Amino acid sequence: MSDLTGKKLILASASPRRQAVMAQLGLITEVRPSGASEIKEGLPPALLVTENALRKAGEVAGRTREAALVIGADTVVVKEGRILGKPRDEEEALSMLRFLSGGRHDVISAAAVIDAQTGREAAGHSQTAVFFATLPEELLRAYVATGEPLDKAGAYGIQGLGALLVERIEGDYGTVVGLCPRLLARLLREFGAEIF
Amino acid sequence: MSDLTGKKLILASASPRRQAVMAQLGLITEVRPSGASEIKEGLPPALLVTENALRKAGEVAGRTREAALVIGADTVVVKEGRILGKPRDEEEALSMLRFLSGGRHDVISAAAVIDAQTGREAAGHSQTAVFFATLPEELLRAYVATGEPLDKAGAYGIQGLGALLVERIEGDYGTVVGLCPRLLARLLREFGAEIF
Repeated sequence: MSDLTGKKLILASASPRRQAVMAQLGLITEVRPSGASEIKEGLPPALLVTENALRKAGEVAGRTREAALVIGADTVVVKEGRILGKPRDEEEALSMLRFLSGGRHDVISAAAVIDAQTGREAAGHSQTAVFFATLPEELLRAYVATGEPLDKAGAYGIQGLGALLVERIEGDYGTVVGLCPRLLARLLREFGAEIF
Repeated sequence: MSDLTGKKLILASASPRRQAVMAQLGLITEVRPSGASEIKEGLPPALLVTENALRKAGEVAGRTREAALVIGADTVVVKEGRILGKPRDEEEALSMLRFLSGGRHDVISAAAVIDAQTGREAAGHSQTAVFFATLPEELLRAYVATGEPLDKAGAYGIQGLGALLVERIEGDYGTVVGLCPRLLARLLREFGAEIF
């Protein structure tokens, strides 16, 4: 399925991880990163990520002239009521990783699909529990020094070296990466598009 | 870490999924598929995969002249005491998928590391529970028609379109793919090699 009832797919995200999820599903996608302003607080996490996914898709859909389905996504890490986004610097990355070490947190990822021509939209979210191993300080420092944590919510990437921090997950792996394949497939189906 | 105390890494597996796990960890690996004969039954699943991982690594180590650590791996899918390997044909793939639909199964992956010069070896296994959605017959047929199930234990690939069949997992994702990153890191550490 490379085009969907004649519409192209546009991913409103610069994340190579999300692009990889699209490729995994055999979806040929054009990438147009969104410039939408995101909200960081003031809503429960699941509503916050869903709103942000809709904003990202909406901003790109608003400047798209072709027949296209625009996909937005957003991810947060939540532990003990605290929402962790991307760390500002190495020091904050280290403090996030210390906070996550040896316990459970949740990753919530939302996806939104908007038809650029009709404005019709669909959105949803998924949640996965992640259990970190108890990690010695020197390992956390070595991980931060790799540079991987800096552009990632919660300061780790499970699809990279960060896999070594994670003991196990309960839920969907794609949700931790940043986009749940089953959720995306369900949303696309609402627009008449079947992946297989 | 591209070389390890002067030794090259050799992956005794032709599986592109396992090669991807090595790349995820930043490990530069040479691929030399093993011709070892595998056992299919007669042992509990965890012992069976560990024995096969050792056989694969051992066969390649036996014909390796350089200073190298040889990595072998093996994976089975287990449900209700039945071990599912790779399906023989599309019909068997379909029957495996029907069997997995709507329930839990376990994926067990073993890894073995052998030092080609000293013969020293280390091995272990990891296990992850996978919960399939209840899947309609036409979806299973469409999935089999993509060709993806044919070279995979249990007739699905979670890192491909098969992600759409999986509701959730409990455990490590790499184990379902065919090689657990944390297990591999632990084994390599026994040979003095730290990933980061």
